[in-house]
Amino acid sequence: MFKAIIDADILKTSIETLSVLVDEARFRISPEGITVRAVDPANVAMVSFELGSDAFDEYSADDCEIGLDLSKINDIFGVAGKEDKLSMELDEMSQKMSLHIGGLSYTLALLDPSTIRAEPRIPQLELPTEVVLNGKDLLKAVKAAEKISDHMLLGIEDDTFYMEAEGDTDRVRLDITRDQLIDLKAGDARSLFSLDYLSDIVKPASRSNEVTVELGKDFPVKIGFTIANGAGRIGYLLAPRIESD
Amino acid sequence: MFKAIIDADILKTSIETLSVLVDEARFRISPEGITVRAVDPANVAMVSFELGSDAFDEYSADDCEIGLDLSKINDIFGVAGKEDKLSMELDEMSQKMSLHIGGLSYTLALLDPSTIRAEPRIPQLELPTEVVLNGKDLLKAVKAAEKISDHMLLGIEDDTFYMEAEGDTDRVRLDITRDQLIDLKAGDARSLFSLDYLSDIVKPASRSNEVTVELGKDFPVKIGFTIANGAGRIGYLLAPRIESD
Amino acid sequence: MFKAIIDADILKTSIETLSVLVDEARFRISPEGITVRAVDPANVAMVSFELGSDAFDEYSADDCEIGLDLSKINDIFGVAGKEDKLSMELDEMSQKMSLHIGGLSYTLALLDPSTIRAEPRIPQLELPTEVVLNGKDLLKAVKAAEKISDHMLLGIEDDTFYMEAEGDTDRVRLDITRDQLIDLKAGDARSLFSLDYLSDIVKPASRSNEVTVELGKDFPVKIGFTIANGAGRIGYLLAPRIESD
Repeated sequence: MFKAIIDADILKTSIETLSVLVDEARFRISPEGITVRAVDPANVAMVSFELGSDAFDEYSADDCEIGLDLSKINDIFGVAGKEDKLSMELDEMSQKMSLHIGGLSYTLALLDPSTIRAEPRIPQLELPTEVVLNGKDLLKAVKAAEKISDHMLLGIEDDTFYMEAEGDTDRVRLDITRDQLIDLKAGDARSLFSLDYLSDIVKPASRSNEVTVELGKDFPVKIGFTIANGAGRIGYLLAPRIESD
Repeated sequence: MFKAIIDADILKTSIETLSVLVDEARFRISPEGITVRAVDPANVAMVSFELGSDAFDEYSADDCEIGLDLSKINDIFGVAGKEDKLSMELDEMSQKMSLHIGGLSYTLALLDPSTIRAEPRIPQLELPTEVVLNGKDLLKAVKAAEKISDHMLLGIEDDTFYMEAEGDTDRVRLDITRDQLIDLKAGDARSLFSLDYLSDIVKPASRSNEVTVELGKDFPVKIGFTIANGAGRIGYLLAPRIESD
Repeated sequence: MFKAIIDADILKTSIETLSVLVDEARFRISPEGITVRAVDPANVAMVSFELGSDAFDEYSADDCEIGLDLSKINDIFGVAGKEDKLSMELDEMSQKMSLHIGGLSYTLALLDPSTIRAEPRIPQLELPTEVVLNGKDLLKAVKAAEKISDHMLLGIEDDTFYMEAEGDTDRVRLDITRDQLIDLKAGDARSLFSLDYLSDIVKPASRSNEVTVELGKDFPVKIGFTIANGAGRIGYLLAPRIESD
């Protein structure tokens, strides 16, 4: 059993955190809320998604797992107004989800979860450094870097967090010092990442005023932030690329 | 003789009701106003267009018929400002139309009406049911349906007008009950239509707060609304598709 | 030595006056400001660009010449906010330019000026007539003309400046009389120009309330206006096309 009502806009921005990495996902539903763990087809990035029952206006659920085609959900949001409420109800018999939004009723066939890639095991990494900053700064540096390269360094040097990209002849760098950061656990950190993935991840992250970035030396980066006014939490884990120089 | 002045914006939205179906049209001009009857190249949809002399700031005309390339007219509107007045004058000698708008003067060659498809005979259908609703509701249902199908059911069931589309696995439906409608003449009605054509038709219709939809059982639909602040009237007639199930 | 700070928006609109004609340019830097003279690859249009030191918040420079890839500069502006200040510093040793904007630091490799086409000699033409008008009027006429032709007449007849384009069957014309012009030095003038080039030139010119257009009979047109709130000046020279009729 699953029945819930939520602001269409909250669910839309929540779903976007998944759809930047995968096209379909297994949603694990419980009385406490919804969780998703997914890994992109190339095994480079993982996302851990939690949306607590507090994010919903109404919420009642037993434990169950459903598969959803995220592009179909996004199509529905395309028609919804900003203020619309979305109500959902699972029909386990027919394996369909009923959605009501702005007067429209949708009946969506669920995907068989067993046809969707299994939930990845999220590695329990303890990374030595941590930066907390506004997501807009991440977005700005990534957008600038995309113009000249396809990968980007993230690192910490003394008390400064930096993002740097180098093209054939040009270089762009964003330095953010401790006093410009919301928080900093300094240390020795420097890893290179694919801009394809960073771009995907910073798009939803840029909506958050407080994004936590955990880094190591040639280690994956963890990028975390809350969604749904604090009632949900997203964590990305992105594998590093090897520096060739 | 034909000489007239009109708000560019009024003429623009009026012409759009034709250009969704045809590229060129025969305009029948009389002292009372302008009428057009046209049918799309595939013979699926007809439009009946009336723009009374009241829609114009100034209007004087004898009976005549001219052929116009609608895309050329739309190009002119592309340059016009929202507040611009458009003045037109027909030069029957040279078979040219002079247009003045925002300081620009256009001289457009007319098309020989005999090269444009003849005016269709509009069938005098008496359809058993009629719904009056806000054009925005039509647009919303059609936009949602386009995502999952290429045809859509329009029908009346008890006191509810519905629009429904079914894809391979999914379904979307808009129900509007009598109390949410501006007017309803209930009855037994249910017909299937191509979304290609419905999309074209609801685009101009969505600007109207009061769109009349007349339906039968596997019969064409009539969709009517006023334009030019009530000084004109558009009527579409769209042939049904055969339901395969 | 070259070191300067300027409003990003002022530099952006200044650079655009060059990038409509060329992809890379030689910037001649002196204590008084920056000048560029460039000709498009087909030798049809020239631009003379002057940006005085007054346009900058801070400016100090010795005489030098640098080559810049304009598309790279435009990429940088793509990330900048409207209110951002851009600071620049030339490193002559490494032949790199350092740019700082909105927290981002760029290091751009300069182009060797000798690999960029030499500065053209700008002919000292004395044209018999001159019109001063709002750049938006130029833009409007050019946009209307593009729909029906690929070239456009500019001329003066009695006390009226006109722009006229003729397609296979249609014609569009903008007449501006002396009282609607900011200034007019009347005379006999009429020349035909490529709309490809006129479109490129009137785009930046349309931001200016006072554009000077100098014309002759089958002679090039000079189009001039100020930039950077009067601290800079742009002059285009566009060769005429031969009228075939």
